[in-house]
Amino acid sequence: MAVTIGVFDSGFGGLTVLRELLPLIPGAHYLYLGDTARLPYGSKSQATIARYAVESARFLAARGADHLVIACNTATALALDDIRAAVPIPVTGVIEPVVRVTQQRHPAANALILATTATVHSHAYRTFCELHGLHPAEKACPLLVPLIEEGWVDHPVTRDVLRIYLREALDLCKPQVVILGCTHYPLIAPLVSQTLAELGSRADVIDSARATALDVSHSFSSSPQAPTPIAHATFECYATDSVEKFARLGSQFLGQSIPKVELLDLGG
Amino acid sequence: MAVTIGVFDSGFGGLTVLRELLPLIPGAHYLYLGDTARLPYGSKSQATIARYAVESARFLAARGADHLVIACNTATALALDDIRAAVPIPVTGVIEPVVRVTQQRHPAANALILATTATVHSHAYRTFCELHGLHPAEKACPLLVPLIEEGWVDHPVTRDVLRIYLREALDLCKPQVVILGCTHYPLIAPLVSQTLAELGSRADVIDSARATALDVSHSFSSSPQAPTPIAHATFECYATDSVEKFARLGSQFLGQSIPKVELLDLGG
Repeated sequence: MAVTIGVFDSGFGGLTVLRELLPLIPGAHYLYLGDTARLPYGSKSQATIARYAVESARFLAARGADHLVIACNTATALALDDIRAAVPIPVTGVIEPVVRVTQQRHPAANALILATTATVHSHAYRTFCELHGLHPAEKACPLLVPLIEEGWVDHPVTRDVLRIYLREALDLCKPQVVILGCTHYPLIAPLVSQTLAELGSRADVIDSARATALDVSHSFSSSPQAPTPIAHATFECYATDSVEKFARLGSQFLGQSIPKVELLDLGG
Repeated sequence: MAVTIGVFDSGFGGLTVLRELLPLIPGAHYLYLGDTARLPYGSKSQATIARYAVESARFLAARGADHLVIACNTATALALDDIRAAVPIPVTGVIEPVVRVTQQRHPAANALILATTATVHSHAYRTFCELHGLHPAEKACPLLVPLIEEGWVDHPVTRDVLRIYLREALDLCKPQVVILGCTHYPLIAPLVSQTLAELGSRADVIDSARATALDVSHSFSSSPQAPTPIAHATFECYATDSVEKFARLGSQFLGQSIPKVELLDLGG
């Protein structure tokens, strides 16, 4: 029987994780939940974020998820322990996998983390990097999510903004590796690499979506209950706000159209 | 006895209305409430926005406000009737005053409204403009709020973004007047005028903060209980999330430092 994997984010960004997962565990069925009515989580208290994330996790577990992926940096940083305590299934967050991959490829490296203001303020990446012997520096990039949600993923303005952020960061650190610490950022990964090169940096760019997906797939391939891969993975999407917006914007993140989104009410 | 005026917004933008009010009704005492823990309102349902706004309005009325200013376009567009039904004091929203001022200065003009996506989707400006015999066109400018909140109010990137938005809008309409339909936008009013001129438009720019403040002050100067102006107006600020962030970012909107912000819990 195919495995069911629940993927949760406050919005659309986690669809970049789903996009990476689809070809990696092709036998799986995916349930994606975007808690779009209550985004952004970043400005809310830890207790509120934990309550929201636990409600979403319980919904996905009740719908039959065998494994849960928290494809949201804020929820991972602030609510991973609460989620693990609330559901009886394995839970993978988005931060540990990318830090482990970084440490394996670039042991003891200087790592520059690009993330939202909320993620930077949580210092979750910094803490995990230091635990793994990396030397982290964090740079908040608050305009990147709005620019990506505007659809300006290869746009002169986004190039300008990225150049400003990266120049400010490179003035303070000389990274061997740059971590894209937000699930929106894979859409501008090529732009990040180009801009780093223009600024004279040869840092390797690692995105948290791919690293997380690889981590989840490893946990299945090493498991005795690993599913036999079949041709196509399947997915269904749930959102707590406008399903039209989710289908439209989400398809950019998923890299394919989203034929159907079900509206979900998780309460205020 | 001095009049007490409550000013409410989901965040910081409404401080541009307070900034305009301070010199206009100098005898008044102001209570400003930013419901920062629950912003942005734009992505939420009408019922949720009305519930949030009514809670905030009741708090300000209970604290002694004699008059309430809804300095938030989304709450005005979606919850003004609910707020008026919930509190026993006069309530001024941010949309009607600017449309009235526009109609007085430029009767039957083509009016271009710049606003957030949520405000544009509500079509509240369009509806009021048509009621007043204006010919409205609406342009959603989703990147302007994040750029202003980044502090880039006179920045090349903000100029570029504004030029793109205005060029797209001017391709579709030839306005005699441009309405800044978001309480963040007064911070970039000079940039809007300059960019319009660069693009060959001589449209007059009217901001909703000033128009609303003038409207409120008129209602006091024509009132028999009008306060005798004294040298300094006073204000106190409440926020539902980080008071440090409110004081830091808010002072840019208010145009003066905010010495003290009180943390308020209005519930989830």
